Amino acid sequence: MYTFEDLQHIVNEALAQEEFVKEPSDLYEPIQYALDSGGKRLRPVLALMAYNLFEDDIHSKIKPILGLEIFHNFTLIHDDIMDRANMRRNKPTIHNKWNDNVAILSGDAMFIKAYDYLFQYQGNNFTEVLKTFNQTALMVCEGQQYDMNFEGQDSVKEQEYLRMIELKTAVLLASGLKIGALMADASNDDVGLLRQFGLFMGMAFQLQDDYLDAFGDAEVFGKKIGGDIAANKKTYLFIKTLEKANEQDAKFLLNVFHSEFSGNAEEKIQQVIAIYKKYDIHKLTREKIEAYFEKAHEALAKVSVNPDRKKHLSGLANKLVKRKM
Amino acid sequence: MYTFEDLQHIVNEALAQEEFVKEPSDLYEPIQYALDSGGKRLRPVLALMAYNLFEDDIHSKIKPILGLEIFHNFTLIHDDIMDRANMRRNKPTIHNKWNDNVAILSGDAMFIKAYDYLFQYQGNNFTEVLKTFNQTALMVCEGQQYDMNFEGQDSVKEQEYLRMIELKTAVLLASGLKIGALMADASNDDVGLLRQFGLFMGMAFQLQDDYLDAFGDAEVFGKKIGGDIAANKKTYLFIKTLEKANEQDAKFLLNVFHSEFSGNAEEKIQQVIAIYKKYDIHKLTREKIEAYFEKAHEALAKVSVNPDRKKHLSGLANKLVKRKM
Repeated sequence: MYTFEDLQHIVNEALAQEEFVKEPSDLYEPIQYALDSGGKRLRPVLALMAYNLFEDDIHSKIKPILGLEIFHNFTLIHDDIMDRANMRRNKPTIHNKWNDNVAILSGDAMFIKAYDYLFQYQGNNFTEVLKTFNQTALMVCEGQQYDMNFEGQDSVKEQEYLRMIELKTAVLLASGLKIGALMADASNDDVGLLRQFGLFMGMAFQLQDDYLDAFGDAEVFGKKIGGDIAANKKTYLFIKTLEKANEQDAKFLLNVFHSEFSGNAEEKIQQVIAIYKKYDIHKLTREKIEAYFEKAHEALAKVSVNPDRKKHLSGLANKLVKRKM
Repeated sequence: MYTFEDLQHIVNEALAQEEFVKEPSDLYEPIQYALDSGGKRLRPVLALMAYNLFEDDIHSKIKPILGLEIFHNFTLIHDDIMDRANMRRNKPTIHNKWNDNVAILSGDAMFIKAYDYLFQYQGNNFTEVLKTFNQTALMVCEGQQYDMNFEGQDSVKEQEYLRMIELKTAVLLASGLKIGALMADASNDDVGLLRQFGLFMGMAFQLQDDYLDAFGDAEVFGKKIGGDIAANKKTYLFIKTLEKANEQDAKFLLNVFHSEFSGNAEEKIQQVIAIYKKYDIHKLTREKIEAYFEKAHEALAKVSVNPDRKKHLSGLANKLVKRKM
């Protein structure tokens, strides 16, 4: 069986062999640029791990599964335009390096390429794989729309926030696992359990992101602490604090998380983190993460393969939830 | 057999029965808005006409073929952002009515919906249909990229221009016909001939667009004469005139087709049209249109069905090429 690192290596090698650049270069170069910029390759690796639970020979499945990574990178290109993000993975974003038009159109072309790879799949459950991919893609768009809507709202309910991160992040991880299981012709029960495992792991993964932004170790984290706070992102930490805060703290938070706030960013970050701590939000968030993590493991435990085969997937879940960066 | 108008009606009825709006509304309302805004429905109608050459019962094919219309409208939404076009079909464009972010994301969602419809196809040549659609979608992006590139170039060669309109417009019409023929399980020869028919017809159709912009009858045309000239669009008329013009006329054209030109637009349009006429560009363009039209008919004539069954398709080609609006 393949470890996470094996598969990460295999996916990177497979991507490196693909040639995306042709004429017109403004359309295709950004695709190559985006795929050359690294990343964890989490979505294709999860799909291959799910497949590898049931089947040993993964090779014919690599190419179609690259479609998941290409799709994910397409969503980042368009999200970065919408969020006016100038950097990603320590490199200028595409609309920043080229321009908005190039980012819109090469994103579209990249999305089409994702389908190109997916359509190369030959095997069981072809239409089911396609439909799963499509439903997921639409949910990712819904998640991004809710995320943008939240920017203009003062209050976001916990349930609304959890639904947003489920759509924007967790469903694509879940669908990676589901697609891998479908390709291995796993039973309906196992397909559903692996999807659940991915969904809960995805929720834990995103909440860990929220957590690290405020409570990570800056040196290990690799980026500045408080980026979400500076950008007025209404994360899980913010929403839970507002629920618990007294009138004064709530008023302060709403005031500094406002697009018109023009005070000192560094000071704001320190003050907000202090309020988070005052209400034990770091503990509460860790508990929430652990709860999702538990649910993920419960789902994985029920998958009908030898427990020994599950060790890489459960090890990966451990790593993702306990990660410091 | 169904006439063009029959099928236009059937496509409109089928689209009207689809419900695109759900939550989040900012994501889905623009999709409904775009599809409610009319248009000729040329792509799905051509696909159904090609299918109907071989088969009488079209009903099971309508829904997947709607994917072509949804895809086409998606490309218009993203093109309108890139071209900063504020109006389409006498209504505000989506980025104008909402904003750029809504237009980017609802466009993406619409593209996914196009695949949703296409994936509902059950029948012959499923993967061939998917691959044809995908190749075409990528070519449409290439065409849009070339079109944008041309804006920044002084000179565009005739062959480059023809390739651009082939990619941007003709291939999607051609693929509509090809997909209809594939769904009817037509022979490879017939599939290829119908694609050719669509390609040549698409070229004639786009050149007719160029022609009408300068030489149409304003009252019948329904929009202002000279829109392409005002927008510095390097159409077929412009490119052929530059080829033939003396130094003085060429210099004038290059000068007024420059983004920094700040003279009177109405005067510019009249002067440019006068130069086009001086070099007989209206005649030359009509000859080019007729030549594509001839080639389209030659391809259609070779399709191995009873000539009587082809009358609606050849009638449509006549209408499109001779249209005044």
